[in-house]
Amino acid sequence: MSEKAIILVSGGLDSATCLALAKEAGYVCCALSFDYGQRSSSELAAAARIASAMQVADHRVVKLGLDAIGGSALTNTAFDVPEQESEGIPITYVPARNTVFLAYGLALAEAIDAASIFIGVNSLDYSGYPDCRPEYIEAFQAMMDLATKKAVEGSSISLNTPLISLSKAEIIKTGTLLNVDYSQTVSCYQADDRGRACGSCDSCRFRRQGFLDAGVLDPTKYQD
Amino acid sequence: MSEKAIILVSGGLDSATCLALAKEAGYVCCALSFDYGQRSSSELAAAARIASAMQVADHRVVKLGLDAIGGSALTNTAFDVPEQESEGIPITYVPARNTVFLAYGLALAEAIDAASIFIGVNSLDYSGYPDCRPEYIEAFQAMMDLATKKAVEGSSISLNTPLISLSKAEIIKTGTLLNVDYSQTVSCYQADDRGRACGSCDSCRFRRQGFLDAGVLDPTKYQD
Repeated sequence: MSEKAIILVSGGLDSATCLALAKEAGYVCCALSFDYGQRSSSELAAAARIASAMQVADHRVVKLGLDAIGGSALTNTAFDVPEQESEGIPITYVPARNTVFLAYGLALAEAIDAASIFIGVNSLDYSGYPDCRPEYIEAFQAMMDLATKKAVEGSSISLNTPLISLSKAEIIKTGTLLNVDYSQTVSCYQADDRGRACGSCDSCRFRRQGFLDAGVLDPTKYQD
Repeated sequence: MSEKAIILVSGGLDSATCLALAKEAGYVCCALSFDYGQRSSSELAAAARIASAMQVADHRVVKLGLDAIGGSALTNTAFDVPEQESEGIPITYVPARNTVFLAYGLALAEAIDAASIFIGVNSLDYSGYPDCRPEYIEAFQAMMDLATKKAVEGSSISLNTPLISLSKAEIIKTGTLLNVDYSQTVSCYQADDRGRACGSCDSCRFRRQGFLDAGVLDPTKYQD
């Protein structure tokens, strides 16, 4: 029987490529997405489309109880968030984001006896995020190896980050070879309800440049 | 200004003692509890009573979206849980439990700029749980130190486990010196709606023996 893998799928370009790589490697794939009050429902809708298009064995969506963490931290007077930070933190900010996501990934891996967890972090595009760096991933793996009975007993769960050192263009080339339908993915911070991108936000510009650099026709649906 | 600490408070005897130690150490205390479909509401009610009695600055309850993880893993046909395990796994089983709890602790610590996280794990009473051992805690701390911007910039968040090597009797003696009202805590697996213990389950027996060994009058409310 093939081994199972959990793939964190956000609805974006990177995680779709990550899912394609896990599938290519022969895993029985279980997509895992998070509902944390995203800007619009378009990200989760994209995650569902991608999971379906790639014929995953299962797709689960975990609702994060962040109203008790991030949300109220920004309004709770007993614990004021420092001024300079609260201005920069969007409503959908997820503190300790990848740690929370990967903790659920580990929980699901333990529950369904999966051998691997895939996350599409990338240390080049997101150098500002500590939890996208190789040293963070290594430390999470070391913690995982001590966290569950199965891991302690020797059947280690591996944490895979196949995109970690790739450029956006390299990611797009990789996914294109694996027939990822990028028209189904949403990267835009302000996508509309139909998943159409604004074309002007940072995320849109990085993505557009990635397709240009990769020499791949950009299938992104824009709002105009 | 005093530093803030997050204390994971379950409603049980250990975490109540942990909270008393954090308070004694001078921290501004924020209690953090988890709603994951506990047997009865008595645990969370006890957590609220304890937080209130110890006059914490804040008490937050995070609802864990485990229906997509543990619960449905036991009923989902695409991913059958091995037979021998499903028999032994209670409905309220939380896979990778302390990793999920501590991930939320870290998220809250980042959100409110707390200096410390306290968890009442104990390696003596719970030797069967990998995520109660000192080596797991050390690995989680190492991962935490790489996970957030603040930690990377040098303002490390410390993970404290003051009970990790104490016996149940030592925990009870410690808390009694700090005036913890153990009558407010619930340890029983089958406590009734009023928080009264069955007196016969494993948890009740360990607790009763702890009070005997400590030479402290057992204030536990029993069902008969």
